[in-house]
Amino acid sequence: MRALIYQGPGRKAFREAPDPEITDDGDVIVRVDAVTICGTDLHILKGDVPVAPGRILGHEAVGTVDEVGEGVRRLRPGDRVLVSSISGCGTCRFCRDGRYGQCLGGGWILGHTIDGTQADYVRVPFADTSTYRVPDGFSDEEILMLADLLPTGYEVGVLAGGVRPGDVVAVVGAGPIGLSAITSAQLYSPSHIVAIDNSDARLEAAKQFGADVAIRQDPLAVIKDLTGGLGADVALSIPGEAGGGPACFELAVRLARPGGRIATVGVHGEAATLHLEEQWTRDITITTGLVDTSSIPTLMRLIMTGQIDAKRFITHHFGLDEFDEAYDVFARAASGALKVVLSRSKE
Amino acid sequence: MRALIYQGPGRKAFREAPDPEITDDGDVIVRVDAVTICGTDLHILKGDVPVAPGRILGHEAVGTVDEVGEGVRRLRPGDRVLVSSISGCGTCRFCRDGRYGQCLGGGWILGHTIDGTQADYVRVPFADTSTYRVPDGFSDEEILMLADLLPTGYEVGVLAGGVRPGDVVAVVGAGPIGLSAITSAQLYSPSHIVAIDNSDARLEAAKQFGADVAIRQDPLAVIKDLTGGLGADVALSIPGEAGGGPACFELAVRLARPGGRIATVGVHGEAATLHLEEQWTRDITITTGLVDTSSIPTLMRLIMTGQIDAKRFITHHFGLDEFDEAYDVFARAASGALKVVLSRSKE
Amino acid sequence: MRALIYQGPGRKAFREAPDPEITDDGDVIVRVDAVTICGTDLHILKGDVPVAPGRILGHEAVGTVDEVGEGVRRLRPGDRVLVSSISGCGTCRFCRDGRYGQCLGGGWILGHTIDGTQADYVRVPFADTSTYRVPDGFSDEEILMLADLLPTGYEVGVLAGGVRPGDVVAVVGAGPIGLSAITSAQLYSPSHIVAIDNSDARLEAAKQFGADVAIRQDPLAVIKDLTGGLGADVALSIPGEAGGGPACFELAVRLARPGGRIATVGVHGEAATLHLEEQWTRDITITTGLVDTSSIPTLMRLIMTGQIDAKRFITHHFGLDEFDEAYDVFARAASGALKVVLSRSKE
Amino acid sequence: MRALIYQGPGRKAFREAPDPEITDDGDVIVRVDAVTICGTDLHILKGDVPVAPGRILGHEAVGTVDEVGEGVRRLRPGDRVLVSSISGCGTCRFCRDGRYGQCLGGGWILGHTIDGTQADYVRVPFADTSTYRVPDGFSDEEILMLADLLPTGYEVGVLAGGVRPGDVVAVVGAGPIGLSAITSAQLYSPSHIVAIDNSDARLEAAKQFGADVAIRQDPLAVIKDLTGGLGADVALSIPGEAGGGPACFELAVRLARPGGRIATVGVHGEAATLHLEEQWTRDITITTGLVDTSSIPTLMRLIMTGQIDAKRFITHHFGLDEFDEAYDVFARAASGALKVVLSRSKE
Repeated sequence: MRALIYQGPGRKAFREAPDPEITDDGDVIVRVDAVTICGTDLHILKGDVPVAPGRILGHEAVGTVDEVGEGVRRLRPGDRVLVSSISGCGTCRFCRDGRYGQCLGGGWILGHTIDGTQADYVRVPFADTSTYRVPDGFSDEEILMLADLLPTGYEVGVLAGGVRPGDVVAVVGAGPIGLSAITSAQLYSPSHIVAIDNSDARLEAAKQFGADVAIRQDPLAVIKDLTGGLGADVALSIPGEAGGGPACFELAVRLARPGGRIATVGVHGEAATLHLEEQWTRDITITTGLVDTSSIPTLMRLIMTGQIDAKRFITHHFGLDEFDEAYDVFARAASGALKVVLSRSKE
Repeated sequence: MRALIYQGPGRKAFREAPDPEITDDGDVIVRVDAVTICGTDLHILKGDVPVAPGRILGHEAVGTVDEVGEGVRRLRPGDRVLVSSISGCGTCRFCRDGRYGQCLGGGWILGHTIDGTQADYVRVPFADTSTYRVPDGFSDEEILMLADLLPTGYEVGVLAGGVRPGDVVAVVGAGPIGLSAITSAQLYSPSHIVAIDNSDARLEAAKQFGADVAIRQDPLAVIKDLTGGLGADVALSIPGEAGGGPACFELAVRLARPGGRIATVGVHGEAATLHLEEQWTRDITITTGLVDTSSIPTLMRLIMTGQIDAKRFITHHFGLDEFDEAYDVFARAASGALKVVLSRSKE
Repeated sequence: MRALIYQGPGRKAFREAPDPEITDDGDVIVRVDAVTICGTDLHILKGDVPVAPGRILGHEAVGTVDEVGEGVRRLRPGDRVLVSSISGCGTCRFCRDGRYGQCLGGGWILGHTIDGTQADYVRVPFADTSTYRVPDGFSDEEILMLADLLPTGYEVGVLAGGVRPGDVVAVVGAGPIGLSAITSAQLYSPSHIVAIDNSDARLEAAKQFGADVAIRQDPLAVIKDLTGGLGADVALSIPGEAGGGPACFELAVRLARPGGRIATVGVHGEAATLHLEEQWTRDITITTGLVDTSSIPTLMRLIMTGQIDAKRFITHHFGLDEFDEAYDVFARAASGALKVVLSRSKE
Repeated sequence: MRALIYQGPGRKAFREAPDPEITDDGDVIVRVDAVTICGTDLHILKGDVPVAPGRILGHEAVGTVDEVGEGVRRLRPGDRVLVSSISGCGTCRFCRDGRYGQCLGGGWILGHTIDGTQADYVRVPFADTSTYRVPDGFSDEEILMLADLLPTGYEVGVLAGGVRPGDVVAVVGAGPIGLSAITSAQLYSPSHIVAIDNSDARLEAAKQFGADVAIRQDPLAVIKDLTGGLGADVALSIPGEAGGGPACFELAVRLARPGGRIATVGVHGEAATLHLEEQWTRDITITTGLVDTSSIPTLMRLIMTGQIDAKRFITHHFGLDEFDEAYDVFARAASGALKVVLSRSKE
């Protein structure tokens, strides 16, 4: 089969690779029908996230079940499924707590510690608890946004940040995950969503996705003005693939009100300074987190009712043989790309 | 009257000062019957916490109501009351949320931005919502531990840290507030409380107060051994008056398991490094906080039933005219002092 | 002044009454500019809720502060205020917990145990914690909906019921409070809101207010169809002034899924049967509750941003001297009245 | 093998039955080493809980894994395991939410809808998520209390009831499950536990298990006296095998304070009256629930540290061939039996 293979920092190749095989009776083999590229893949290529050379990248897919291990209960060949970015064994203490991202035998392994989804076929471990049937009437592309992007903004940003009706939410970083958080924050009806970024294109996108304020400069003054001088109820630090994690985090902390919550979302590749000498009295809560994708059923329901528009994240379409072009477009900020999708049907 | 007056970094004086007067009809004047010294007072004297010279220090007292403003509903002259370290107006958004520590017109003001309790008399603003009637049958001294010490360990440590039955709790820093946290953590029946400090005397005290493990070295190895390699469910960073905030915090973060909670308690006077590059995937929660003293009624009930022994914190007794000696003893680590109490009855 | 006076079951009179006076220094006297009639007032007139004859009815008002007790901090004569239906002392254990409805010295007292708002002037006790400044730019009428109607649906229905994104919410009873719950449930983005009533006019209103399903019959079949046979995530029992409390509650319990929540909202005047022999294994949660109006600041913010349209509840406008007509219209189902407002400006 | 077989209301027989076989590759066959009888088994025999004649009873066991299905990951023959009363598939929406008791393919099935544990061998479905390894150094008997008894009191009583430090907890019904709730309530340090029963032997047991008040009469007066007239923070309705569910529930509701919580625990075989006309304003929360046994790991840890003494529940010991005697003793109130254990080692 064809696959996108990581070859060490800065290098990748799209080429032939052996077909995956079932190695555990909880596995399924999925034929990939649609796949996307994540900002994390770019971090891997930059060397920020260590991955062994030779690994097939990719941790998001919609596809068709091709082969099923004997222990799999809920899937049959031919089923159309979403492959979650997170593989959960379903039995460890973290899985039993709903924290699939921390699964002791799984977690984020696809395209990281085992071969991933940017290929014609992928082996998916713990298939019963790591895939979701795709309802009829929905396109591969929109459901694909549930593999990682939408749950990450929702779980790690909005839920961890505890957004509530009437809140003022600051979103520092308006890349794709920032836009995902802006999208799902609206499920809780904040009074204001303030997007902060240094790219005009991203700020424009933030407005289209639902931020009512989108600014480059003086975020503290703007937020204070909206909150009677107090600060944001919730501040999200989402550096995205553009990097700048420490500055992003430190700004988010400054923007939060006393009693506020700061949620860090996505890759933060460097240590940051936490000004405890300023914050020790301020009752703040800071969270970090890997997505669990436990919210996929909820978000899928909201896509079905039209309350979330997943398609709007998709700016570029490619065939499954166009990985080089797709990576190139996704990596170039100037392309305006949010999410690129590579589909079998586009070939 | 006599009062202990801050005179700038490193300097204080116990001398005559004018009697306080009611300035707002929600005020009461309390005659101080028992007062203590807090680690925060030492931080003020070191210059870590800015206070205007001339200020009477002290934010904890048990006393007798001497005079009552016209707007006060719940108190009469002669009432024996606990004066909370936190003054809550009762009407601002934070007070209505139970976050008295963040009160927009009050908070920690006694001995900080207004004159405090280390004197014969003290003016207590917002008296209806900032004092508590002392039940009969309890000594001034034990109730005095509710003004700040016990609620701080409980609210900012145990409640913010979300201690649950069966948890492994790491307490980094076993000064008085650390011992307070060890005391109240037991209300939630953790399976293990591990105290970490570099003073043998404090480690010995930690054991007496309920830690089942008390160590100087290799805390990570010890905690991992207790938790199947995962880390503590809850880690408390309590540098106390001994300082060392950044190291204390950074150790607490390292000790926490994935999905764990780190609560910072008490004065953290310097910025710390937060290793987001290690923690971004680990689902941790970090909290900071000033005490609200909202737990005083609960803790008072548990003192009444004997489930909390407040007296054990008190190692030294002085008269109200012995501030110099009391400060001296409290500040000297070698004294073994936990809490010193200065009482009118000891004069 | 003029006032609407309860004279025993079935009888009321609009006539002269003495002006109210300040009796406690936390009181204010408010000149009533706009007032409404609540379903609870009809329950009083029916004799369902005991009230002493001679009482001035009414527990909702927007008005102008006329006189201020000496202990009042936050208000001055001339301030335009919303008078909450709930008077909270701000200092008792329930008020300190945010449960103003259970206030030991207050709670729902206006138009119940003390004279109320259906008059030219009203004495408002505990004014600092029982009134809210009205922001500029908003009409008396829309803000008036915050005195009771909107917080009741939100707090006692939506918050107690724990509505979450993607939920299926059943609202049994689509009178004004039911419509209030339908309005505020949308703040949490449920996937479906199913209104159940036996009045076509109310079902039509429910659809206009945001229910996507509005039915008279077979609610269990409809709900099961929407939920894969499980039942509603949240079921609200809101009999309203139309009565039928037991049947309403028992239906709500039947509609809830295992693990679901049933919130009872508003007056339930009779005992109901709880089928524990069916429910003991089903992990349900049932709540009752009086409104606290603690959500007024949040809901006010959402009216200001346009996320809640309070005006749509108001179907009829009267002058402050037209109580007889207003009561008549409000009590007649055929009138299609949701909320009637009596305003000084309409005189 | 030998097995205890239900033969219709009032009838059971201990006799030969075919050995169980693996029918799904997630099954294990467990050789039963210790088993107990639950009050629910008596309810089945009374006809309160419908079970098909011919069914082997029993839903609690400690045993040794004898045979393992091919899909089982975590168990091997020879492993010593606790068999939970609840079988959770681990993949349905309820299992993913930790509500194993509501599992769509499992739940309480052992000794109910499939053959149970009162036999030499038992087939355990979904074994990876329905059994727990028994740590060395603990007796079969004490671990057996974790199959149902201890988690039921803890999860359905103490956790659903939200017991907090300082609370006053009323336990209506002091049978074995009531004693379990009394035991685990102490993990949260309530100020008072008041046991109410009409058997002196049970009241005496309640005191020994940790209730500080144990009464037959005037519970409302006693509770009000302890709570300043308000009522219990938490009231548990635990009719147990003695029945009387409606009276038990209705008393629990009366005992709860405004804002209090009432948790129903165990079989409630009849409908009860809920006095909504009294309770609609009182902010109460009522819960029902089947145990999930999700707390087994926590409770096991607390048995290991000695914080829970599981052995004290066991009053009578039998061999595995003495079911008739064991049932007889357990059913006779006069026997003073709490839990009877039948062990292979006693044969």
